[in-house]
Amino acid sequence: MARVRLRISMSLDGYVAGPSQSVKDPIGIGGMRLHEWVFPLAAWRSMQGMEGGEVNDSTRIVEESVANVGATVMGRNMFGGGPGPWSLETPWNGWWGDNPPYHHPVFVLTHHERPPLALEGGTTFHFVTQGPEAALDAARRAAGTQDVMVAGGALAAQQYLAKGAVDEMDISLVPILLGAGERLFEGLGADLHGLKLVRTIAAADVTHLKYAR
Amino acid sequence: MARVRLRISMSLDGYVAGPSQSVKDPIGIGGMRLHEWVFPLAAWRSMQGMEGGEVNDSTRIVEESVANVGATVMGRNMFGGGPGPWSLETPWNGWWGDNPPYHHPVFVLTHHERPPLALEGGTTFHFVTQGPEAALDAARRAAGTQDVMVAGGALAAQQYLAKGAVDEMDISLVPILLGAGERLFEGLGADLHGLKLVRTIAAADVTHLKYAR
Repeated sequence: MARVRLRISMSLDGYVAGPSQSVKDPIGIGGMRLHEWVFPLAAWRSMQGMEGGEVNDSTRIVEESVANVGATVMGRNMFGGGPGPWSLETPWNGWWGDNPPYHHPVFVLTHHERPPLALEGGTTFHFVTQGPEAALDAARRAAGTQDVMVAGGALAAQQYLAKGAVDEMDISLVPILLGAGERLFEGLGADLHGLKLVRTIAAADVTHLKYAR
Repeated sequence: MARVRLRISMSLDGYVAGPSQSVKDPIGIGGMRLHEWVFPLAAWRSMQGMEGGEVNDSTRIVEESVANVGATVMGRNMFGGGPGPWSLETPWNGWWGDNPPYHHPVFVLTHHERPPLALEGGTTFHFVTQGPEAALDAARRAAGTQDVMVAGGALAAQQYLAKGAVDEMDISLVPILLGAGERLFEGLGADLHGLKLVRTIAAADVTHLKYAR
């Protein structure tokens, strides 16, 4: 049965992005520190077309994050390009270059219409203006028997967590403070909608917490 | 060398107490859920004079929490009795009965003077009105070569974390949301003052994260 999965890196103080997000700091000031555990990994480097790298307890997390994923949903901020209508003269085509690491349909939550953007390697960005449920429905259809990944950011993740739409949640808890920015668990109340801690992996400089129903 | 240690249970969304703390809900609504991992343990039960109980991966955490501790510092809310001057007619003597589980001097941060309160089993509560530094100094002197434990609540812990006064921090991360209440990491900025993750214990329904310099 296809699942809706969320995986995200979070600081000890609960932030999934630092303050003052911008083109210079896409994940906010200090936000890149949330992802430093992934960059040395061979599993991650090979996805970017790079050789070499480490194999450690986090390798499994990276491998799982792309296994059996048929579609991705993300918020407008994660796709980037700033708020407001899309510029068609100098279009923003995401952070990931000509060959994004998704290789499947990606549904971007936005208030502003835009035609689909087909890039290399099988990644097509679809811009959905009818809200989070419509985006998830479209992603489920596109994924077929495979899973849908909710990629973030905080607001997109919160919308699906609040609806109880998330079947699996992988939180990579990074032992740092960001002090400000966007918290994952904000305005969600006390209801985890049946998600329970099912696995803890103590890796180098990061603790991977898996929640499932 | 004597250390200043903080150990505290925290929800996945960062709360160390739920909302609306009261005599009925000393740790706020839902706050007792933060401590459910400890109640079945033989190590904890024996401290309360009870027999039986479980031994599991959390046992070590409970044993460590009382080992080599010569004094404790806590905030007024953790000692309880409501805000404002102490009533001398119907004095509040803490939550723990005639024989509190400390068995050493406990320094309570308060704005209101009160004579020391000596209870059974070696626990004496000292009420310190000169601020957190004075309380910590007094606790260090009382502890001698042993450690000082910062017991909480959130505000007391924050005051010592902000000063970089904490040498070891044990966070028992409980896989629940409280949704509201008091967060441990609030207003502390991004500085962990050299504290690094040094140990992760994946126990039943709780993940113990140890930070040290």
